[in-house]
Amino acid sequence: MAWVELVTVLALLQFLYFGMLVGRARERLGVKAPATTGNEIFERYLRVQMNTLELLVLLLPALWLASGHLAAPWLGVLGAIYLIGRFIYLRAYVAEPAKRSLGFGLSALPILILLVTDLVGAVARLVRG
Amino acid sequence: MAWVELVTVLALLQFLYFGMLVGRARERLGVKAPATTGNEIFERYLRVQMNTLELLVLLLPALWLASGHLAAPWLGVLGAIYLIGRFIYLRAYVAEPAKRSLGFGLSALPILILLVTDLVGAVARLVRG
Amino acid sequence: MAWVELVTVLALLQFLYFGMLVGRARERLGVKAPATTGNEIFERYLRVQMNTLELLVLLLPALWLASGHLAAPWLGVLGAIYLIGRFIYLRAYVAEPAKRSLGFGLSALPILILLVTDLVGAVARLVRG
Repeated sequence: MAWVELVTVLALLQFLYFGMLVGRARERLGVKAPATTGNEIFERYLRVQMNTLELLVLLLPALWLASGHLAAPWLGVLGAIYLIGRFIYLRAYVAEPAKRSLGFGLSALPILILLVTDLVGAVARLVRG
Repeated sequence: MAWVELVTVLALLQFLYFGMLVGRARERLGVKAPATTGNEIFERYLRVQMNTLELLVLLLPALWLASGHLAAPWLGVLGAIYLIGRFIYLRAYVAEPAKRSLGFGLSALPILILLVTDLVGAVARLVRG
Repeated sequence: MAWVELVTVLALLQFLYFGMLVGRARERLGVKAPATTGNEIFERYLRVQMNTLELLVLLLPALWLASGHLAAPWLGVLGAIYLIGRFIYLRAYVAEPAKRSLGFGLSALPILILLVTDLVGAVARLVRG
């Protein structure tokens, strides 16, 4: 469970960091709350945060469920790929939104693997009764 | 717990699917990232995804807590109503946003039932000490 | 665990309430779905909900992990500060967005404390093996 805890905390801290980048961009670029549009660079940071939020709510439950089905080191590896993928996504999206696919795919792949594992595991458990 | 696992995985997969619809709509309708406005149909898909995100972060913890208070089949039934409600919401919202109430209510109702159950359960546990 | 359950349920109910405020503001101010812009007051309510969503997905996992490291009453106190901070944030943001810092800080602080606790706890557990 220690690997699951570590991946969980690091994914949360990464999301917190992305949120801080949005706050800093808002300040620096003069986008006054509650506006979220009007400055393209700010919007890029905001979309990185929102897309990460969408993946985070998938990753964490998928990871926790998978801890009943996959060995801890695998969970650590999948978590690391997610985290690295997210940083690549951040860099690419802020530089040039059209180039965000690699980072997105890299962070989405481990989530897909976890979800398929969880689905098979849950169905198997129901079938066994 | 198998029913809770299954509902969890299905709700996550459904949310992933709604996210893929947003990505496809962005492509098809030519809404260039990071923009989220400018095309009403795209905005409908995006709002379906965001509203589902808002409900998903309520559903999952509420479901997990309720697994200590409600029998597994009830959790399965409530989960099924949520999932069906979300698909109705998707269809209705994309066709005509003003008609989204039924699907919304259908997916919000099981969450309300779970939250009330959880609240009563948590207070009862504190009172018993 | 009863305190963790209670904080969890109250944080979920608070987020549900913020969502209801957005729905009511949409109705009252005539912002037709799927639009999310065009009325500043509506946008304030929406930003309160979104910012609370961002913090909620941090708070809950951080709280659950911390239940293995911190005594229950501390978890209750940190949860109470978060909840109060969010209500202050709501009031301030709706009245005057520029004054939202106190409420934000008050609800972000317990999350930071929980995350640091979780990180130290997870690393310690890995080191001990």
